[in-house]
Amino acid sequence: MSAAFIRTAAAHRAPSPHGSSTTRWLAQAERLFTAAARLGHDGVGITRESYGDGESAVLALLREWAAERGLAHATDHAANGLFAQRAARERPRIVCGSHIDSVPHGGNFDGLAGVIAGLLVLDRLESEGVHVPLTVAAIRGEESAWYGKAYVGSSAALGKLKAQDLALRNARSGRSLRDALVAAGADLDAIERGCRAPWTQADAYLELHIEQGPVMVKQGWPTAIVSGIRGNVRHNRIVCIGEAGHSGAIPRDLRKDAVLAVADLLMRMDRHWAGLLAEGEDLVVTSGIVTTDAHEHAVSRIPGEAAFSFEARSQHPATLERVHALLVAEIAAVAGERGVRFELDRKIVSPPARMDPGLMRVLQDAADAAGQPCPQLPSGAGHDAAQFANAGVPAAMLFVRNEHGSHNPHEAMDLADFVAAVEVLYHAVRRLA
Amino acid sequence: MSAAFIRTAAAHRAPSPHGSSTTRWLAQAERLFTAAARLGHDGVGITRESYGDGESAVLALLREWAAERGLAHATDHAANGLFAQRAARERPRIVCGSHIDSVPHGGNFDGLAGVIAGLLVLDRLESEGVHVPLTVAAIRGEESAWYGKAYVGSSAALGKLKAQDLALRNARSGRSLRDALVAAGADLDAIERGCRAPWTQADAYLELHIEQGPVMVKQGWPTAIVSGIRGNVRHNRIVCIGEAGHSGAIPRDLRKDAVLAVADLLMRMDRHWAGLLAEGEDLVVTSGIVTTDAHEHAVSRIPGEAAFSFEARSQHPATLERVHALLVAEIAAVAGERGVRFELDRKIVSPPARMDPGLMRVLQDAADAAGQPCPQLPSGAGHDAAQFANAGVPAAMLFVRNEHGSHNPHEAMDLADFVAAVEVLYHAVRRLA
Repeated sequence: MSAAFIRTAAAHRAPSPHGSSTTRWLAQAERLFTAAARLGHDGVGITRESYGDGESAVLALLREWAAERGLAHATDHAANGLFAQRAARERPRIVCGSHIDSVPHGGNFDGLAGVIAGLLVLDRLESEGVHVPLTVAAIRGEESAWYGKAYVGSSAALGKLKAQDLALRNARSGRSLRDALVAAGADLDAIERGCRAPWTQADAYLELHIEQGPVMVKQGWPTAIVSGIRGNVRHNRIVCIGEAGHSGAIPRDLRKDAVLAVADLLMRMDRHWAGLLAEGEDLVVTSGIVTTDAHEHAVSRIPGEAAFSFEARSQHPATLERVHALLVAEIAAVAGERGVRFELDRKIVSPPARMDPGLMRVLQDAADAAGQPCPQLPSGAGHDAAQFANAGVPAAMLFVRNEHGSHNPHEAMDLADFVAAVEVLYHAVRRLA
Repeated sequence: MSAAFIRTAAAHRAPSPHGSSTTRWLAQAERLFTAAARLGHDGVGITRESYGDGESAVLALLREWAAERGLAHATDHAANGLFAQRAARERPRIVCGSHIDSVPHGGNFDGLAGVIAGLLVLDRLESEGVHVPLTVAAIRGEESAWYGKAYVGSSAALGKLKAQDLALRNARSGRSLRDALVAAGADLDAIERGCRAPWTQADAYLELHIEQGPVMVKQGWPTAIVSGIRGNVRHNRIVCIGEAGHSGAIPRDLRKDAVLAVADLLMRMDRHWAGLLAEGEDLVVTSGIVTTDAHEHAVSRIPGEAAFSFEARSQHPATLERVHALLVAEIAAVAGERGVRFELDRKIVSPPARMDPGLMRVLQDAADAAGQPCPQLPSGAGHDAAQFANAGVPAAMLFVRNEHGSHNPHEAMDLADFVAAVEVLYHAVRRLA
């Protein structure tokens, strides 16, 4: 990874109007991303567990870096990290934030890029002696991979984490979210009372993030402005219950095979997906987890149980509702035809989010000022920005080009693209201030 | 379970010509099955791991019981248990055997019934002072659930366990079959040299076993003679490799979703299965294990990998070949259409087995002598008897009625049915001697 950083830095083209900042930012970004990658490396990719040790370790790294530069740092009641200039804390407040956790065996840039971007902007303001009421938020627990729920850190900061969410359990360790929050230093009492952290009552929330799809690479766009964020509907765990039995001795018509029932259901939903796309709907459908019961399954045993996750994402709430209704209908059909039954856990909905047109214009003006082309692009992935937007905080996002998607160890963001986006962010913050 | 035993014993109908033996057998069977169930109970069902502790424990129980009755016991080079009368070891030899292992969370009767049946016959011969060259074999490692290979104990005894089989690993513990054999007391050197245990060079192999399908319950047959044994073709682990990525950010046409590819393949094979049955073929198809990678999967991650098992069983080798060819063709088609690839482990074939017509006649005559109707029925499940038949040892099987199939904790064999079958077995042994 460090080799790629060196190549990237050397390949950086013409000096920008802020040539010295660019050079400084490239060096700072390389140092921070490299140090974070070392902390988070798990042998395969990067693992920074939501409200876990890896997440806390990267926050400590950022704090140390900020302290060296004379920046202030703090923590809110949800244990999110906050950074600011010591001299500038008055309203109107601007927040630049993103998250510091990762999926298991994920990449180094998903989330962390936005936090480091904010810190680089803060550092430049500080070194220029310009005091701006900017808070940089290093948000915890954005990834749903750990507790089956996304945006834990921003929800808690916004006073919207539900009591039932505290009982969610870590998919790997089994630890409850409640215990993880306490271990990370959160104020559980404040969370349970639905306190909203003062920093979230801002006038603008800006989030820089890598694109997690292939569009910008394909189009050749180093940076883009996000036009809106897909929401999603999910079941983390649907269990299909059939009847186990000897694989050789039960004829086809007497079987209740849970695996074939799930395969049947997934293929029905796959056909609906293709059909809805053909109708022009915006939609992606994923079952990321499918598994027979490891304590009971065997090659020579008709599977009596199979569990799977279901997720659909769309920019349109109506499409999400339509897909969920199709899921429920097909579950009933498969259950009837194959003699199985399905147990669904809680339906979790994250509504789509609209980006603030005023803030999008500020980003566009900043991009023009920086001489950086920024086309518009919808976000397929969800982001903390959606939480702020849906809580009434004007929000907007900048995307940075990134190869190989995200949620895997092969994320590849060019630091030159990153610094170009930080330049846009800096100008936007100056305009807002 | 003991309550069911008591009901069963009380419900036993008219006294047989060997009324006293029947009463004695009922009491002995209840004692042995109850003690074995206590040893093997895992909180859910019965677990007796192939070449593992539970298997060894039940063998020790049987040895103790045999020793109390003055019967001889021994062990072959594959650590299988052998029992005989002390006075009768000359040729021509008859073997009554079955297996003492179970699948995880299985039942108490699958396998063990045939061993206890043989011991009850031995005990009666001994108590009658009749010396018969009968060996009762308590065979280890029949279930494929542990090492992905069935008939380990009988294969090793017949000198047919392959060197590559020794490297197979326990699906749960990861322990190699080699290590498990050594731990159970097997002579690895003799196994590797392909030694054939003397007791397997018999003139007749008889195996009593519960039916593992629902036919006898449906037909009202307490006992049946097996007409032939289905063979099977298997892949224990086929891995589908796609491409992981963020579930929200990659459009449908750029995805390589391993779960949808596997679901597609399983549905194609499901349709072929229905088609082949409509053509009159004998066939069952099972994928008992399906799982995404627990170290990497997440609700919000396009599954980059999914693994599954595949098994087809038929009485006809040509049908097995036909199904396997269809599997290979559909794998190629799905790989092409969905941009994934499949990695197949070794194809394992257990050929179908013919039962010996002469021995089947002996069983029929014995059934007539015992006044016990014994219709004929093919076996959907594989049995050690198939190994003996395919090694040139004349083999035949008796089935006992059993509810709820096998490979699950709900196996339910009526002890009255069991004792009726033991009576047939006794008469067959007397005729062969």
